[in-house]
Amino acid sequence: MKATIITIGDEILIGQIVDTNTVSIARHLNNLGIQIAEKCSIGDNSEAIVETIDRVVRTSEVVIITGGLGPTKDDITKHTLAKYFGSELEYNATEGEHVRQLLERRGIPFTELNRCQAMVPKCCTVLHNAHGTAPGMWFDTADGGVIVSLPGVPFEMEHLMQDEVLPRLRSRFTLQQIVHRTLITRGIAESLLAERIAEWEDALPEYLHLAYLPAPNIVRLRLSAYGVDGEMAEREIARHFEALRAIIGDNIVGLEGSSVEQLIHEILTAKGLKLAVAESCTGGTIASKFTAMAGASQYFMAGVVSYSNEAKCDIINVNMTDIETYGAVSEQVARQMAEGVRSVAGADYAIATTGIAGPGGGSEAKPVGTVWMAVATPEKTIAVMRNCGTDRSQIISRASAYAIEMLYEELKRL
Amino acid sequence: MKATIITIGDEILIGQIVDTNTVSIARHLNNLGIQIAEKCSIGDNSEAIVETIDRVVRTSEVVIITGGLGPTKDDITKHTLAKYFGSELEYNATEGEHVRQLLERRGIPFTELNRCQAMVPKCCTVLHNAHGTAPGMWFDTADGGVIVSLPGVPFEMEHLMQDEVLPRLRSRFTLQQIVHRTLITRGIAESLLAERIAEWEDALPEYLHLAYLPAPNIVRLRLSAYGVDGEMAEREIARHFEALRAIIGDNIVGLEGSSVEQLIHEILTAKGLKLAVAESCTGGTIASKFTAMAGASQYFMAGVVSYSNEAKCDIINVNMTDIETYGAVSEQVARQMAEGVRSVAGADYAIATTGIAGPGGGSEAKPVGTVWMAVATPEKTIAVMRNCGTDRSQIISRASAYAIEMLYEELKRL
Repeated sequence: MKATIITIGDEILIGQIVDTNTVSIARHLNNLGIQIAEKCSIGDNSEAIVETIDRVVRTSEVVIITGGLGPTKDDITKHTLAKYFGSELEYNATEGEHVRQLLERRGIPFTELNRCQAMVPKCCTVLHNAHGTAPGMWFDTADGGVIVSLPGVPFEMEHLMQDEVLPRLRSRFTLQQIVHRTLITRGIAESLLAERIAEWEDALPEYLHLAYLPAPNIVRLRLSAYGVDGEMAEREIARHFEALRAIIGDNIVGLEGSSVEQLIHEILTAKGLKLAVAESCTGGTIASKFTAMAGASQYFMAGVVSYSNEAKCDIINVNMTDIETYGAVSEQVARQMAEGVRSVAGADYAIATTGIAGPGGGSEAKPVGTVWMAVATPEKTIAVMRNCGTDRSQIISRASAYAIEMLYEELKRL
Repeated sequence: MKATIITIGDEILIGQIVDTNTVSIARHLNNLGIQIAEKCSIGDNSEAIVETIDRVVRTSEVVIITGGLGPTKDDITKHTLAKYFGSELEYNATEGEHVRQLLERRGIPFTELNRCQAMVPKCCTVLHNAHGTAPGMWFDTADGGVIVSLPGVPFEMEHLMQDEVLPRLRSRFTLQQIVHRTLITRGIAESLLAERIAEWEDALPEYLHLAYLPAPNIVRLRLSAYGVDGEMAEREIARHFEALRAIIGDNIVGLEGSSVEQLIHEILTAKGLKLAVAESCTGGTIASKFTAMAGASQYFMAGVVSYSNEAKCDIINVNMTDIETYGAVSEQVARQMAEGVRSVAGADYAIATTGIAGPGGGSEAKPVGTVWMAVATPEKTIAVMRNCGTDRSQIISRASAYAIEMLYEELKRL
């Protein structure tokens, strides 16, 4: 089973947006056992759309198209698909009523353009878009394939994939499984790693495909198996990764997996423990990562973005004399922030960050990128200093990741 | 002049990485006056590479390929290109010496695999990769086109584009210009906006292409002109955007580059005013938007993510009886949060949000998506209730955008 993903929109071709839709769609399809043959991005151009569909249906049973379903003149996907299938557009009363109600709730008048959003090709199965105004469309092709058109707004696409497209694909096709597992190594260059594990690589069974994914100080090793018995392939991959420990054990970080904040979310929820966060340089990023997860209110008590010195003292009881003596970016202040917010918020665990995100504010002793982070637990407080890079957004994201990691190191022992 | 960008790597097709390379390449080519006809991602598969190149050279004079140039067995781009051009690989001593020195500086031994990285097809022009071990390759095709192969590591690709590829394209082709300008509007739904500016849109000259790019509470209007005199097109676009002010002046934020939070950032910095934020359902997102901007510490005093009722009472002095009487998601609590954090943080202005981000916690009276937001100023406090949608991440991002917008409405009068 092969699929092609087509994204439509000039904003992609001119580099105005970063495409995350196809990342999500590709993962969903792979989980289902459908291999992606190609991803293709084209403009809002009727000819290009038709040519591309015509080409890819020859090799892909499933074609997922996103984008170009908005109410304005530059959106031409729906009309192009209607023409492609020789079908007329007709008003779908259910979708029309849904759009009207959706807009009413937001206090937006229902216009002729909105009415047009409920016009769909007669020949398609309408995929109800509970979260937006543009319905998805499912077309069955003459030779047993499927062409699906989804809106390009990421969360609308995501809900439609999960709620409408995946269940239909699952019941429509008999699918085999695809398994990808990735092992993270660090501290060894790609070429050296490849030589070190050459014998292991040569002994891999033919159906396991190895890929090397290098990044600064890290090489990820991915083993993929297509069209297999999933459980068997997982066991086999685990066995081969285990064998690597004897060769490069010191360089192995672990399996690529769910995010660290998700692991923390699960531990805190399961154990009924509470969390609080005090952030200076990370400015709310850590709090937003936890609160983005449904159910966070079970354990997330409070976050304090104590940006000013006064906020550090007044809200979470950092000692002003210590700020003056050691500086706001110091071990002492990081520790007091973690302990302070833990106490003020009535939490069991707390994370704190204080650092210099730049571009200004650095010094020789504390250059831009210097971040102190602390974790307060019921028993103790630990603090660590790390240099988190040179670019403001990089520093914020690295400091957030390191601090969350520190908490996880404590929690995983429970 | 048309170009196609081909990215090679299974990690793209399985959704393991978010592609930012093509965003950067597309921007560079557009700036040069080269339009992207298509972006295409395929796997590490010799047949797919050859087929795709064969197809796209028919319509694109320039083809940029990234990925598959590493030292390991899964990297096949170079061998495939050599075969495609009927050329043999030969050792390039300059590149070999460069790789050796580069590895030596990092304390990594020079291996046979590294030596192979300096093997390049005889027929290509080598593009020196000062920051990595895989050289870029420039191939002239029989019918006057160009095929360029670059490594997929983002900073190596970026450096090669800027230092090697763009200057060569500029001197090789006579290029016209491409102009894109984007105007940001807020507070008006896409369909309503389209109706409001229909006459203006219809009167645009044919060479100016209008696109609508919707996001929560924001619609960006992009005008694009291809193959034009750049200065003339820029003047013309400026004139048309200016004409929009008479129609939707209240909804215009400004040209892309300026977000509402940036406008607030500028006002607060210029006037020496201080800001604080109290967030419940937005969970730190508003704070992180302000603190992401360099210089935020000039005015951003504190944010409090008062997720629990206790945090609302203990940290920012919300009245517990009011929470019990009216609920945490209520006008009363939103007002007290804004006033409380303004006072606790010693700020002039404060934003507060409290709402139901879901998926749980909704009721008939207060369904998921209900958000109360308040702004406290030195003179008064205002509060508004809005329905922010149905999906958790959508609710968080819309509520953040609306609340920031409310503050801007107050500040722009200063």
